[in-house]
Amino acid sequence: MDYTPVLQQIEHELKPVIGQGRVASYIPELAKVSPHHFGMAVVAIDGSLHTVGDAHVPFSIQSISKLFTLVMALQLEGERVWDRVGREPSGTPFNSLIQLEAESGKPRNPFINPGALVCTDILCTRYAVPENAVVEFLRPLSGNKAMHYNRAVAASERRTSHRNAAMAHLMKAFGNLANDVDEVLDAYCRHCAIEMSCVELAHAARFLVHGGTHPGDHAAILGTSLAKRINALMLTCGTYDAAGDFAFRVGLPAKSGVGGGILAVMPGQYAVCVWSPALEPSGNSLAGSLALERFTTLTGQSIF
Amino acid sequence: MDYTPVLQQIEHELKPVIGQGRVASYIPELAKVSPHHFGMAVVAIDGSLHTVGDAHVPFSIQSISKLFTLVMALQLEGERVWDRVGREPSGTPFNSLIQLEAESGKPRNPFINPGALVCTDILCTRYAVPENAVVEFLRPLSGNKAMHYNRAVAASERRTSHRNAAMAHLMKAFGNLANDVDEVLDAYCRHCAIEMSCVELAHAARFLVHGGTHPGDHAAILGTSLAKRINALMLTCGTYDAAGDFAFRVGLPAKSGVGGGILAVMPGQYAVCVWSPALEPSGNSLAGSLALERFTTLTGQSIF
Amino acid sequence: MDYTPVLQQIEHELKPVIGQGRVASYIPELAKVSPHHFGMAVVAIDGSLHTVGDAHVPFSIQSISKLFTLVMALQLEGERVWDRVGREPSGTPFNSLIQLEAESGKPRNPFINPGALVCTDILCTRYAVPENAVVEFLRPLSGNKAMHYNRAVAASERRTSHRNAAMAHLMKAFGNLANDVDEVLDAYCRHCAIEMSCVELAHAARFLVHGGTHPGDHAAILGTSLAKRINALMLTCGTYDAAGDFAFRVGLPAKSGVGGGILAVMPGQYAVCVWSPALEPSGNSLAGSLALERFTTLTGQSIF
Amino acid sequence: MDYTPVLQQIEHELKPVIGQGRVASYIPELAKVSPHHFGMAVVAIDGSLHTVGDAHVPFSIQSISKLFTLVMALQLEGERVWDRVGREPSGTPFNSLIQLEAESGKPRNPFINPGALVCTDILCTRYAVPENAVVEFLRPLSGNKAMHYNRAVAASERRTSHRNAAMAHLMKAFGNLANDVDEVLDAYCRHCAIEMSCVELAHAARFLVHGGTHPGDHAAILGTSLAKRINALMLTCGTYDAAGDFAFRVGLPAKSGVGGGILAVMPGQYAVCVWSPALEPSGNSLAGSLALERFTTLTGQSIF
Repeated sequence: MDYTPVLQQIEHELKPVIGQGRVASYIPELAKVSPHHFGMAVVAIDGSLHTVGDAHVPFSIQSISKLFTLVMALQLEGERVWDRVGREPSGTPFNSLIQLEAESGKPRNPFINPGALVCTDILCTRYAVPENAVVEFLRPLSGNKAMHYNRAVAASERRTSHRNAAMAHLMKAFGNLANDVDEVLDAYCRHCAIEMSCVELAHAARFLVHGGTHPGDHAAILGTSLAKRINALMLTCGTYDAAGDFAFRVGLPAKSGVGGGILAVMPGQYAVCVWSPALEPSGNSLAGSLALERFTTLTGQSIF
Repeated sequence: MDYTPVLQQIEHELKPVIGQGRVASYIPELAKVSPHHFGMAVVAIDGSLHTVGDAHVPFSIQSISKLFTLVMALQLEGERVWDRVGREPSGTPFNSLIQLEAESGKPRNPFINPGALVCTDILCTRYAVPENAVVEFLRPLSGNKAMHYNRAVAASERRTSHRNAAMAHLMKAFGNLANDVDEVLDAYCRHCAIEMSCVELAHAARFLVHGGTHPGDHAAILGTSLAKRINALMLTCGTYDAAGDFAFRVGLPAKSGVGGGILAVMPGQYAVCVWSPALEPSGNSLAGSLALERFTTLTGQSIF
Repeated sequence: MDYTPVLQQIEHELKPVIGQGRVASYIPELAKVSPHHFGMAVVAIDGSLHTVGDAHVPFSIQSISKLFTLVMALQLEGERVWDRVGREPSGTPFNSLIQLEAESGKPRNPFINPGALVCTDILCTRYAVPENAVVEFLRPLSGNKAMHYNRAVAASERRTSHRNAAMAHLMKAFGNLANDVDEVLDAYCRHCAIEMSCVELAHAARFLVHGGTHPGDHAAILGTSLAKRINALMLTCGTYDAAGDFAFRVGLPAKSGVGGGILAVMPGQYAVCVWSPALEPSGNSLAGSLALERFTTLTGQSIF
Repeated sequence: MDYTPVLQQIEHELKPVIGQGRVASYIPELAKVSPHHFGMAVVAIDGSLHTVGDAHVPFSIQSISKLFTLVMALQLEGERVWDRVGREPSGTPFNSLIQLEAESGKPRNPFINPGALVCTDILCTRYAVPENAVVEFLRPLSGNKAMHYNRAVAASERRTSHRNAAMAHLMKAFGNLANDVDEVLDAYCRHCAIEMSCVELAHAARFLVHGGTHPGDHAAILGTSLAKRINALMLTCGTYDAAGDFAFRVGLPAKSGVGGGILAVMPGQYAVCVWSPALEPSGNSLAGSLALERFTTLTGQSIF
């Protein structure tokens, strides 16, 4: 299937919408990004690449990194990960402490901030410099050997991460964090500051289209069953407190970030990534959500 | 595909598990059911029927009725339904008042009790005897022209429905219930007391496999887009507070009931219904959840 | 001590404030009351009466009735009352269901709505017509043998009491209500609709100034220890979610109502009642709170 | 009045109870204290001292320090303190983050941990070494010029203060903490580790008996109105989530600590301090609470 005409139609339709919404401002470095970017990339099951707009421009992946730190934590710990983090939608905003306290320091799922802090803690136990391990994991998957994290963005986020610090200390109080709080926060902010383009992210997610194996080098990233389960988790928990609405409108497993990126997967068919920095109040890219909704409608391909 | 050998293997594997868990006891009439039943029925895309065990034995569908009252409310009101009920997972037990109060009387989704009370309220506004309308809607879909609700179960549930009454009065206080609280509760308890077999339920759900159109008489129950969206809603919200875990393990849109039934859909492939009355603490059938997990694993067919 | 000059000074000082705030509007009958009333009455330990303004005008006592239904429940059940209702401030608005659900249907204290519903339930078990029993209890204490409840106000409140119905049903679900929900709500609304003047209420509370014994007929309403404890309960829980601030500013045990009345006690010195219908957002009389704050400042008499 | 016989009777009565309950164990250094201590001291309005048991033995004052840091914050900032911390009971355990998040980082009152962190933050802004300022404030009031804080206890508490760190970071995220989180936590833990005896604490609180002025040197610690208001605050918020029950049973403004001390005040009559390290589940001294309940019953002197 040639997805390019669909992508061009979507870009045309969304022109009036691009730039609406608000660029994330709580991280000063991110607030500098222009809201008018729009890019989209599809990598189909046959390996063909289809793009439109700013699909090759790197951006701050932010919470999309939670997908990759979960994958790495599962590689290290297997099902033991679920002793420390749940698999249920949170039903509350992504940075809420209320549920974390009521549920004894066990985060609802790995895609909210405290859940990603637990995955980062697992990486901190294994790797001396966890952010380097994550970058090295992503380079071959994405096809960009020069990929890196943005030190200015990481430092900017670290300086304003009092709420994440509160969650990390609360989990430490409940015994659900093995490493020093500061060490975990440093690594977490660097993971969020990794910069990738739509094309690179769509490539990196191909193993979730192919039952856990990356088609480039046939490397088994995860077993088939676990790959499917990560897709399930993205569907129910991947887009903050709007996961239900996102599943309802788009119908694809996806992980979003406040940098304006959304990475989605149609198992057996394609990986797709969209980027537009202006956000809905839920924290998801406004134009990006609409673009994916149009994409599954126009192609008739969703998991439902 | 012939699903029968798979069903037989599952029945064999689960023998030691059937009867584990607890039959719902808060409705006295339901507590009389033996925990040792197990039945399963698949209706494939080609119309073929595959069954095992007690697949033809009628049981109390309980919350599975919420699927059908939602469909009927959508037929009557279209997207206006979403003004009164949300589309997000609740993150709290299915009968919680806390979220309902914090969110001004708008239930999180139509598959928790207060959401189904809103759908029932919509039916009460349109129909003099809403429970008859629901039964008449289900008879042709299920192929059982004698289907009915159990008056003893409805009366038993009505007498113990103080918590549902609390939720209904709270929504009334917030202006989100048009009809008398008692009238809505009467109808709601009768919907829950409808009795159907696995075979009948699997047949009744075929329009969700076929993009909204029932294959028997080609009747368009819902538009394709809305049918897909109901599947999305079942995936994220259909199995109480365990929806994330259910998606993770089973990977199918599903709606469960405390009578021990679970109805699930693989779009484009099949509808499946399983029944075993003993429940997990989450309120879902223990053997039924395991059976569906084995079913998607053995067939390799899930939406992820 | 002659309190009359103090009362006159307070009335003079507060003139610009009387009428500010909002008359309770959720009970249609109450919304008809003019916001410009102001009355105040002090009955000193020596029995002398001091008044200013509308001190003899009857008004709807509303939640001040909770004080008297608690006293009657204690007369009937003694310390067993505390098995069903707590003695702690609620920390949430007076009609919240959240805490009630989280704490298994046991209200935090007898001065929030669900707590008063429990006390009313105790009266319903003992008396065929509990509202008559309350009126008969209050007539000799207040010195008004014709005192009654206002049927139009009771009926108006009953029609809009969906939130109270929600709380009553929730407590019924938890097994903390013995009688029919409708019966308890009927009685509760009639207690709230009792009409008394500042003078009558100040007289009725004299037993709390005198260690439990009413000075008029030396009748022991409650034992000394229990009378003191009711004063403690009024101090910590008597003025809705503003009890801390009220104690801080006024420094007297008090019970307020949305009719605009506040009844307060200085043990060993006086009972004081103030009435002005316009309310603060907390539900307490705006001018009434200020009047009591000035009263304890000007007399130098508070419990602290 | 000679309080000594009353104190002796109480010690005799409570013998079987002393040691029941549990010594606070979350701070390792505190867990080493024997649960069998019991001491009590009364300083009457006339300056006379009455003691029993271990009244002269220093112990860790812990949360009783919150009373003194509040007084010092009020001396520095006056009513501006209330812009940053409320005056209402919390209705939830003393170290809960839930309310703090729901109420935008403004603690309910200065006697719960986050409220005391705000007062400590005020002292950190004014003093280079705030713990020294607190000790210097308390030395003349208590009559012990060698009083100090226990460095081992402070360090032990600091190492386990992840929950306090979570609250401090959350307040920092909401803009309600001016200084570095670590600096505030260091000072806070040292305030808690101050060691005083019952006799010293009762002396230190005499200004709350005398309308704000310390009788020793006639120094005005606070204005009369503010002293009364602190008493009101102790009554409604001073004994953790059991303040309502404590007011009900004891009837005195009081501040307790997990070291087992309780300091209480009867305005115009006496200050009393009791110490016994084994605690009730609420965090208040078990024998200490009973001793104060007996004290107000036997003397007939309570504020109600």
